[in-house]
This record gives sequence, C-alpha cells and structure tokens, in this order.
Amino acid sequence: MNRPLILVTNDDGITAPGIRKLISIMNEIGDVIVVAPNSPQSGKGHAITINSTLSYEELTLDGPQKDFACSGTPVDCVKMALDKILPRRPDLVVSGINHGANSSINVIYSGTMSAAVEAGVEGLQSIGFSLSDLKWDADFDQAEDYIREIVLKTLENPMPKGVVLNVNIPNLKKEEIKGVKVCKQADAKWEESFDERVNPHGRKYYWLTGYFNNMDESEDADETALANGYISIVPVKFDLTAYEYMAELDSIYK
Amino acid sequence: MNRPLILVTNDDGITAPGIRKLISIMNEIGDVIVVAPNSPQSGKGHAITINSTLSYEELTLDGPQKDFACSGTPVDCVKMALDKILPRRPDLVVSGINHGANSSINVIYSGTMSAAVEAGVEGLQSIGFSLSDLKWDADFDQAEDYIREIVLKTLENPMPKGVVLNVNIPNLKKEEIKGVKVCKQADAKWEESFDERVNPHGRKYYWLTGYFNNMDESEDADETALANGYISIVPVKFDLTAYEYMAELDSIYK
Repeated sequence: MNRPLILVTNDDGITAPGIRKLISIMNEIGDVIVVAPNSPQSGKGHAITINSTLSYEELTLDGPQKDFACSGTPVDCVKMALDKILPRRPDLVVSGINHGANSSINVIYSGTMSAAVEAGVEGLQSIGFSLSDLKWDADFDQAEDYIREIVLKTLENPMPKGVVLNVNIPNLKKEEIKGVKVCKQADAKWEESFDERVNPHGRKYYWLTGYFNNMDESEDADETALANGYISIVPVKFDLTAYEYMAELDSIYK
Repeated sequence: MNRPLILVTNDDGITAPGIRKLISIMNEIGDVIVVAPNSPQSGKGHAITINSTLSYEELTLDGPQKDFACSGTPVDCVKMALDKILPRRPDLVVSGINHGANSSINVIYSGTMSAAVEAGVEGLQSIGFSLSDLKWDADFDQAEDYIREIVLKTLENPMPKGVVLNVNIPNLKKEEIKGVKVCKQADAKWEESFDERVNPHGRKYYWLTGYFNNMDESEDADETALANGYISIVPVKFDLTAYEYMAELDSIYK
C-alpha cells in the first residue's frame, strides 16, 4: 500500500505531550496531518459547536507533519479536518494519547474517544489511545512499540463499518507491560461527590469530583486487563440499540 | 405504588416550551423536581464540566413542581440533581421534550439523550423525548397521550439495567400519528458542509452545517417509523462494546 494518510487529533489540546508523542510515532508510518483543539477539551464527550462559530490556523511546531489548531471540540476537529483541511479522506484517524484512562464508562465522557467515534461514523478506520496517567509530564515512551503494532495491524486488517478501537495503556514501565488484550467495556461508573464552596459574594458553587467504582471483575473486562498489566483493546460501536431487549419491549407495546 | 419521584431535565434550557410541556404531563403522574440547564445546551453530547465550576438556583415558575436551573451541561444537571438536590433516588428520569429529532445517530450528539443515558449509568429508569420540529413554538400537544402512556408503561415494566429509551415523535397532528413502534437506531449520518465567512478583521470563520443522510430503509429503523407516521422507541444502551467483532479482533492479536 502507498504511504497512508493519517489524521491525528486529541482532547488535551495540540501542544499536549501525549499527542506530540502519537504524532512522532505516526510520522514513521504515514503522512500525518494534525487537526486538534487549540485548548484543553477533556470531558467534552461528543459535543459539537452549533450555537457559535469555529476557526482554525496552521501552526509550525515539530516534525514533518502539518499542524492545525482548531477552536472547537474534538468532534468539531474531525468534522473540520474532513470538510476543510485534508486533501483526501484519510486512511486512518488516531486520537490521543490521552493523559488519563478512557477505559470502561469513560468512553462516553471522553473527547478523545468521541473524536475516534466521529471518525467511525464517517466510515473511517479509527483508534483512540489513552494512558492511565493524568500527569502532563507522563511517560508516553513505554507504549510506543505497542501503539505502532496496533496501528500497523489495523491498517492490515481493516475493521468492519461501525467499529473503532478504544486502546488503554496501563501506567507501567515497558518491561512490566504484559502485552495486549482484546476486552469488553467494564461495568463501572463514577460516584459523584460535588465539592461545595462559597464565592466571595456569598454564593455557593461546586466542583464536579467523584471516585471511580469498578463493579466488573470479569476476566475479559478492560479494567481487569489494565489492573493485570495488559494494554486493553475494546472494539467500540456507535449503534447504541439494545437489540437484546427489543422483543420484550415490543411485547409491552403490543 | 406510591406517587413516583420524577426528575425532569432537557438540553434546550429550563424555560423551553418542550420541557414545560413534559413537566405538566409528569405533574399528573408523580412528584416532579426539575433540574435543567439555565441556557441552551443543544449538541453538548455527554459533555461534563471538569475545568470550571457549577452552580444552581431555585426558580419559581409554573405548577406544583420544584424548578432548579443549573449552569452546566445536561449531564451535569443529572449529576447535580442526584448528588445535591433530590431528597432521594428518583423512580424515573425524563429528558426533553427536545425541540428537534434525536433519532438515529443524533443520539450521540444530543444533550437530551445524554442526560437520559447518564441517568441510566446511575442505574435509574430513564426516557428521552424529542419532537421532529426545531421551532421554539412547536406544537407539543399532539403527543401528550403517548408520552403519558410510555411513562406509565415504563413505571409498570421497569427496563433492565443498562437500557434507557429514546422516543422520537413525528411532526404530525394527533390524528395523523399512527401509534408507537419499537425500533433500532437507523444507520444515518450528517454530511458536513462548513459555511465559511470572513470576520471584520479579515479572518475566516465557520458555521457547522450539513444535511442529514439516512442510509437505512429497513422496516425496523427509527427513521422509517417516523417517516411512516409512527412514534419511534429505541432501547439504547451504553455498553458500547462491539461483541460481535471481539473474536475476530482477538485472532489478529493472537
């Protein structure tokens, strides 16, 4: 195959160390165009910008790729790239490397994964990568070989329409990572606990905080794989229909 | 059963005619607490507010319910309601009535449906309602009897964990609506077409626009049901795992 065209995006913003690492790996594999948010967009889920306008500008940063910073959400970036910036449909879209895990239920809150899903909606091969380390100066080197392998395998074995990959990397040294494991999304959720404060004018305000509650200890859940030292790969789809409940629901309305 | 406690939210904002209509129907069925955005939040998907703070205030509007306007996204509203506002876990969460359809792929962009999904993540019975009419002064009366029926049936026949309902109402007169139909999410997408403009300082900016492309004419797709004059009910889940592709993916990494 010719050198693939690869679109790179993320949700932490175009200058985040995680995306710069992903770009450097993709530069070895194909021709890279980056269209990523010009500001942090974590937790934006599948938000799009419809009541406001968007803009983008080309930046000169590092390496041979082209870099475009976009004012919108991660999903806006993918739409903008496809409609306005890329010279042709890309062979692959990669999103990340996110600073922080997007395993289990986090897939629905994550801007990184929503960008990957949006590319899937557009019928493109697409992968989101996340590292279980929230730190800005996290070490992204340990997973480099695995990311390269997953990208090359995906280019060689295209996924069916309607599926993208959610790849999570444990926060371990390279020699401690046991390999990759194909998993399901663990049944887990955030237990909310808003942090209540009072502003200088006497009005209450809140920070959204909480703790992660993993309710799924099954062997094939992504949280289990990560806890056991594996990189988890979950095939993710965006047809949300609960087919297994349709017949019963139908009987209620007959 | 005792009078159920019902949480009502939406994405068009607490003063939108769609939510006021939904509140008036719910007041007949149970004790209602409204926690809805204080500003329009359409297209916010599953966004949450993590890099900024949140606040809410009680308003005095119409009817016997309690109304709270929250500064965040629809998903923030659900989290805030459960952690800070409701006296106990609600028996049902309803979101909408959205001004505009949330059928097919729109489920992932929709703040209305993301609020309903968030309630599902919290283990609650939950339904999102949308009307295929974007107008602010849309006529929400025609579906009143159907909404009441769907809510009562849901209270009588609780859904299994991990499932919520996406209900879409065609823009028809009451006598033209043929009934309700349990459906799957149609395979459809938006074809982007950014509207390019130039600001007074000579810089280009864009409005996200596009047209809806329904690629699914199957009898059981929600778009088909709506086009044929039915109210569509899609059972929606938030375990996004593409189970049907796991074995093949696994073989690629063996």
